[in-house]
Amino acid sequence: MDEQLSPDLKGTESEAHAQIPEFPPEVEALTTELIGHIADKWTMLVLEELANGRPQRFTALRKAVPGVSQKMLTQTLRQMERVGLVTRKVHPVIPPRVEYQRTELGHGLGKVVCHLWNWVANNSAEMQAARTQFDAVNFKG
Amino acid sequence: MDEQLSPDLKGTESEAHAQIPEFPPEVEALTTELIGHIADKWTMLVLEELANGRPQRFTALRKAVPGVSQKMLTQTLRQMERVGLVTRKVHPVIPPRVEYQRTELGHGLGKVVCHLWNWVANNSAEMQAARTQFDAVNFKG
Repeated sequence: MDEQLSPDLKGTESEAHAQIPEFPPEVEALTTELIGHIADKWTMLVLEELANGRPQRFTALRKAVPGVSQKMLTQTLRQMERVGLVTRKVHPVIPPRVEYQRTELGHGLGKVVCHLWNWVANNSAEMQAARTQFDAVNFKG
Repeated sequence: MDEQLSPDLKGTESEAHAQIPEFPPEVEALTTELIGHIADKWTMLVLEELANGRPQRFTALRKAVPGVSQKMLTQTLRQMERVGLVTRKVHPVIPPRVEYQRTELGHGLGKVVCHLWNWVANNSAEMQAARTQFDAVNFKG
């Protein structure tokens, strides 16, 4: 695509994107699609709750994830199960006990999400200050 | 809140979450709230588009982020501006030119998000295989 750029310009371009490795277009497209499945608040909070690797019951997860509704947690776990991040096990007791556990894949993603979580925690004061200032300018009485 | 737990129980609990540093409860709560602002597909894709640090026009961003609607991109950029991830500059020309650029804070988050993106790209084949299998079991004719 950029055959016509001079070597110098190519250098500048790839330096600017140095942190982004090149993937084939079909991998890029699939990745963007998969990001759509997992890049949401609830998936990240559930991954964090399951980080220790122990199976957890639906009811326990619901208590541990602040503000999640039953419907949203059901959807989130089903989506996570679909792309291989958690397993769902139904124990045949009365009443049935349903437990969720992270897979190895979920463990890998959990570590990356943990890194994101820590970044936000470490920068939360600065983000909050920006928000306060933005709101003062944009929502002044 | 957990004043009544024995020191032993507290120890077990924090070992299980060894990879998550301890933050004060108010930072945890703020972080969870901020994650709600930024943990979505569009924010991540926009951060990636702005990664090189150059200002970009709204129309260029819209073309670069596949599938985003005008309304959703407007909301996403406003949310990002609110928490200090991008700046918005209106150039007083006719018609007005509006440009967005990542801040230093946005650059920091962009690097973490890039890590997440790469993880998904590197594991996309495995996630896709899981999804195909899940769909075969759950949506069989």
